[in-house]
Amino acid sequence: MKLINFTKDGHTRAGAIVENQVIDLNYAYQAQLKAEGKYRYEQIAAAFVPNNTDELYQGGKESIALANGAIEFALAYPDSFDKKLVHELSDVKVEAPVIKPGKIICVGHNFRKHIQEMGREIPSNPVIFAKFANTILGPQDDIPFYPISDQLDYEAEFTFVVGKQARNVSEEDALDYVAGYTITNDVTYRDIQRRTLQWLQGKTVDGSAPMGPYLVTSDELTNPSGLSMVLKVNGEVRQDTNTEDLVFSVPKLVAFLSNLMTLEPGDVVLTGTPGGVGVAMDPPTFLKDGDVVTIEIDQIGVLENKVRATEAVPVR
Amino acid sequence: MKLINFTKDGHTRAGAIVENQVIDLNYAYQAQLKAEGKYRYEQIAAAFVPNNTDELYQGGKESIALANGAIEFALAYPDSFDKKLVHELSDVKVEAPVIKPGKIICVGHNFRKHIQEMGREIPSNPVIFAKFANTILGPQDDIPFYPISDQLDYEAEFTFVVGKQARNVSEEDALDYVAGYTITNDVTYRDIQRRTLQWLQGKTVDGSAPMGPYLVTSDELTNPSGLSMVLKVNGEVRQDTNTEDLVFSVPKLVAFLSNLMTLEPGDVVLTGTPGGVGVAMDPPTFLKDGDVVTIEIDQIGVLENKVRATEAVPVR
Repeated sequence: MKLINFTKDGHTRAGAIVENQVIDLNYAYQAQLKAEGKYRYEQIAAAFVPNNTDELYQGGKESIALANGAIEFALAYPDSFDKKLVHELSDVKVEAPVIKPGKIICVGHNFRKHIQEMGREIPSNPVIFAKFANTILGPQDDIPFYPISDQLDYEAEFTFVVGKQARNVSEEDALDYVAGYTITNDVTYRDIQRRTLQWLQGKTVDGSAPMGPYLVTSDELTNPSGLSMVLKVNGEVRQDTNTEDLVFSVPKLVAFLSNLMTLEPGDVVLTGTPGGVGVAMDPPTFLKDGDVVTIEIDQIGVLENKVRATEAVPVR
Repeated sequence: MKLINFTKDGHTRAGAIVENQVIDLNYAYQAQLKAEGKYRYEQIAAAFVPNNTDELYQGGKESIALANGAIEFALAYPDSFDKKLVHELSDVKVEAPVIKPGKIICVGHNFRKHIQEMGREIPSNPVIFAKFANTILGPQDDIPFYPISDQLDYEAEFTFVVGKQARNVSEEDALDYVAGYTITNDVTYRDIQRRTLQWLQGKTVDGSAPMGPYLVTSDELTNPSGLSMVLKVNGEVRQDTNTEDLVFSVPKLVAFLSNLMTLEPGDVVLTGTPGGVGVAMDPPTFLKDGDVVTIEIDQIGVLENKVRATEAVPVR
């Protein structure tokens, strides 16, 4: 399933993209239950296929399987319910496949070739740092560029979302705890990142984690290794790698992180970026108003966002 | 108000401590509304004085003022309602004054005297790093010591909670955005913190942010400067400072952080720790099973937690 949230007429709901259509998962499951004669279809659907992804992840594989069945039903009987089950993709706004994750964990220095190029040692433990949920944008949003820095930079990141509560999970079992995979641009205000030892302040500026174009669930994308990842700015290739080059693979990261903390459904992990960021170019080349950043990952798709100079509006 | 969450008979609800009693804020406001003849007392109370602190913070000063009124009502008419309005403090478990904050932002290197002792420059920007909500414990919980390290350390931290959405707030207006103040022990696995450049992994282990004993709301504690802060381990003073020594005061931090990101009601900021942590002792002296860590801050109170060696239980 290509899982998203989508907004239509001011309502944001969980959906799945099927070709050029978007299925409303909760309504589709309600419709199916009603057709099966279930009187409490609305309550049962709210429990098993809730109307936003963050709650849907809590339902684990059971909810994903029920949602898959509901998609089949909606495509077979699109007009069977008093609410719209199937939208044209072009009629909705596609949002990120998470809404408000409890954790966004980012991994640094995780591509082998890039580390070696820089003349550094392969680390024995992953470097991890945080972003907060205020950073999340959808695939159709512009990246705000606030006038707090001239050094806005991109980082292509292969991303997974946790699908099941995880504590002290082994590498062998790890993939069972992954809901699916998506793409994030770990947008970074480079000078702000580097002005202190800790990177957080340059990493968690509002709107600095565009994510999408959707989450490919792990029942469909079963092997997160061997996926090529290419980032372009205005069509020019800047980053080009493959997830097989990750020092700490998805299973290793699930094991490592869950040894330290309880991972919850909906938690997001960005697995690191390869060489080719703007600050490392000669001369350093940062993003500017109007630039288009495109990240493509095999078996997932393309995340494309435009940079837009923006004033932060004070809240009163 | 001394604001907490408390657990009684398996239910966790927002409360206020008044001497040796705990007022159930939501029930107290329901009771008051019902006595005023409001038929929809339950719904109105849910909107304005909800039953958990994280939603209560969203209501801002209006909700705190209504809760204050409800406390007066409950103390005057404790038996006026079909649900218990007033508990003995000893009959409930006191929990942290936040449940699941969207952000826990920690400030490093923020006490002037300690920075100067170390021969370092006073920084021009705060160092900030993150913990996630999996770290939060209440004042009556033990600090779990997982067998992933021998270097468990303490850090006394004067803490504020955001009470109003904040973006680009000036220092002059900043205190208007603070819901109140509490104490956090920024428990740190020191070797894990230091094994990579970024501190997150040693900072966000489950249960590494005991918090309390309650939040003193900012209508009562109006000046966050000039408060003494003392940390003891088994009665021995290890850290001793005053919030007037903060390089980046509460107003400066609200202004700095809200220039980068939108702060939301319930977000938590730990303002930094002074000298005297275990790792800096000669020889380094870490916490061990059974140690009791006590942090006292003027006008707030005492946070005391015991360290308990614990195995992490894998989730199945």
